[in-house]
Amino acid sequence: MYLDELCLKAKNAKYSVAKLTREEKDNALNVIAKSLVDDEESILAANAKDIEAGVANGMHQGLLDRLTLNHERIEGMAEGIRQVAALDDPIGKILDVSTRPNGLKLTKITVPMGVIGIIYESRPNVTADAFALCFKAGSAVILKGGKDAINSNTAIVASIKKGLAQCGITEDAISLIEKTDRETTTEFMKKKEYVDLLIPRGGAGLIKAVVDNSTIPVIETGTGNCHIFVDESADFNEAIEIIFNAKTQRIGVCNACESLVIHENIVKEFLPKLYEKLSTKNVEIRGDKASCEALSEAKEATEEDFYKEYLDYILSVKTVSNTEEAIDFINEHNTGHSDAILSKNEENIRKFLQGVDSACVYANASTRFTDGFEFGFGAEIGISTQKLHARGPMGLEQIVSYKYLIEGNGQVRG
Amino acid sequence: MYLDELCLKAKNAKYSVAKLTREEKDNALNVIAKSLVDDEESILAANAKDIEAGVANGMHQGLLDRLTLNHERIEGMAEGIRQVAALDDPIGKILDVSTRPNGLKLTKITVPMGVIGIIYESRPNVTADAFALCFKAGSAVILKGGKDAINSNTAIVASIKKGLAQCGITEDAISLIEKTDRETTTEFMKKKEYVDLLIPRGGAGLIKAVVDNSTIPVIETGTGNCHIFVDESADFNEAIEIIFNAKTQRIGVCNACESLVIHENIVKEFLPKLYEKLSTKNVEIRGDKASCEALSEAKEATEEDFYKEYLDYILSVKTVSNTEEAIDFINEHNTGHSDAILSKNEENIRKFLQGVDSACVYANASTRFTDGFEFGFGAEIGISTQKLHARGPMGLEQIVSYKYLIEGNGQVRG
Repeated sequence: MYLDELCLKAKNAKYSVAKLTREEKDNALNVIAKSLVDDEESILAANAKDIEAGVANGMHQGLLDRLTLNHERIEGMAEGIRQVAALDDPIGKILDVSTRPNGLKLTKITVPMGVIGIIYESRPNVTADAFALCFKAGSAVILKGGKDAINSNTAIVASIKKGLAQCGITEDAISLIEKTDRETTTEFMKKKEYVDLLIPRGGAGLIKAVVDNSTIPVIETGTGNCHIFVDESADFNEAIEIIFNAKTQRIGVCNACESLVIHENIVKEFLPKLYEKLSTKNVEIRGDKASCEALSEAKEATEEDFYKEYLDYILSVKTVSNTEEAIDFINEHNTGHSDAILSKNEENIRKFLQGVDSACVYANASTRFTDGFEFGFGAEIGISTQKLHARGPMGLEQIVSYKYLIEGNGQVRG
Repeated sequence: MYLDELCLKAKNAKYSVAKLTREEKDNALNVIAKSLVDDEESILAANAKDIEAGVANGMHQGLLDRLTLNHERIEGMAEGIRQVAALDDPIGKILDVSTRPNGLKLTKITVPMGVIGIIYESRPNVTADAFALCFKAGSAVILKGGKDAINSNTAIVASIKKGLAQCGITEDAISLIEKTDRETTTEFMKKKEYVDLLIPRGGAGLIKAVVDNSTIPVIETGTGNCHIFVDESADFNEAIEIIFNAKTQRIGVCNACESLVIHENIVKEFLPKLYEKLSTKNVEIRGDKASCEALSEAKEATEEDFYKEYLDYILSVKTVSNTEEAIDFINEHNTGHSDAILSKNEENIRKFLQGVDSACVYANASTRFTDGFEFGFGAEIGISTQKLHARGPMGLEQIVSYKYLIEGNGQVRG
């Protein structure tokens, strides 16, 4: 009952959001950015309650850090919303026009998705980010954030609604599911009659729960068991810098390197040199037999290791005898996110770019670039690891749909 | 166990199918077309068993007709495959190229979906059609046809596999699930680790079962509660021809008109004239109060009528006082398939094309044109009624994915 009412309001709101002009949307986003800055005091007070509860519940430091808002982070949220306002409008773009032999004129045009649902965990800044992107893409949004951030999210959503109301736009353009129990969340995943798209953002457990339970079309995001293959022709110094960057620049992200594949002809020479650099960050190596022989500090990897997204200072290492074997190994173990070859052999690079079945396949660069901002999209709502609809970083253009307008003068089918 | 083995073979096959050149694919399709023609005798013998069982089980005439193969229908299947061979290759198309400020070169390129699953009912010609489209799109296909057509499907698939083998292509490019019990089908819908996309083709019950149970990304197809809105400025004669065509040209299809929305200012004059024509095909009218007043032959519609896809000689009629009301009524009752306005008022036409939330929105033409062939796609694997990935008729371009190739020279993220 609670959910049906909330979803119905969002469904009704989608029609008026869809009609807003670019100017109306951008103006509203700027007003909302100001509203958030103005409401800093109440948002921080709400956030303090969440932090207090987190500490009382023994929440660990990393999560507490993600949950914490402060002056800079609120300014950051507002600035993110202003940046989305500055991006091109993804709606109303003509993708194709044709006239059929019978005179029917077909126009394929981008339109809003309608109602987008986002299920996420404890980072309250996602609340503002996700709203801004969905709103600019002409959709109403229903947010289900983590229980730990409920007070922060409620305050942020209230501030956004206030900004919408100031602009004469329906406050139902954003809805927050305030019941944070698991049953309500599972029920939400089945509200197909109201919600056009559901995007889960968070850990593997959350994403699996959504995929298993949702009847709403889902875009799966985030899990990244990213590989780097070091071919025998790789430039060792360049390779060491790239791997060091991909493994250690930020360990908790989905585009970090988790698994190394090394050509057997170079493993003895390369791996100890690489380890010299990686050991400055205490990276643990879990290798197959040949890697362990090449590096005494390596621990033996289990088969399970090769499927793992560590999100930690750990790297699995597998040796192969050629590029084909590297491709097969990667396609068997990766998550379809990002994989790279480091090589100076053009033929091997071509084979790898063609053969690896991932959203983003790199040659001679760090996998850490898989990101909507780095790709020039100006924003990102997540990184898709499925093949339907959107693959890789998703910006505004990836959260719209299209329709056909067909104009005739009395055509009937014979 | 049976399913895992079959799915694993398809997954392995997808890599070699993905590598085939356009010439290899087109040549194989032509060989397969010939193989089907050559195997007419064995295919018809298998089909005779299905028909015999159908008759024994009291299968009704319409279904028996769909199930029946003959010389012309086998020639038709072969010709359909040859037509797919003649279409452009949808794979390897460069969608976008850019160079980032750091020198990384991004190429967005179309790639095969991988493994596509199709669940369908008793029409054995779908077996050949679906294979041809998926194969041309570079994917392996797993087919689950209706129990009633199992002998026919087995014979068709054997003939296709023979053709593949003649061309030195893995026979696992096509797989038929020969266990036709419901449990196996439901289990198949959860084989997410092997299957990239699942397309149900058939009635509302089949589609609902797939949406409710699948963990594989689904493209929902087919259900069409299509509306035609007759504005007060419509040309009556043109409107009568269009509605007659959309309602009666073929009643069992998803793009047939099921519901009429008429401006209240013209209902008294228009509806009796329309009925004169519709009654030549014995179309039953189920109307709201104003329609029943305008037409004595009309029966009173229930609220349920307005949500119904009749697939029969029945039409519901609702009167409205303006275009906005028509749009709201249609968005509430349609299935997102095809809806039309008949009007000579440009402003109302614009409003309607913008406001109706369907895959195909028409002005002054029959909804019966929603079809891959009519749209010039050269083929069709179904009509999507969801907004994710593909909307409306789906041809080859709608069953591929894309990936990013990122080429660098040592870039790391700062």
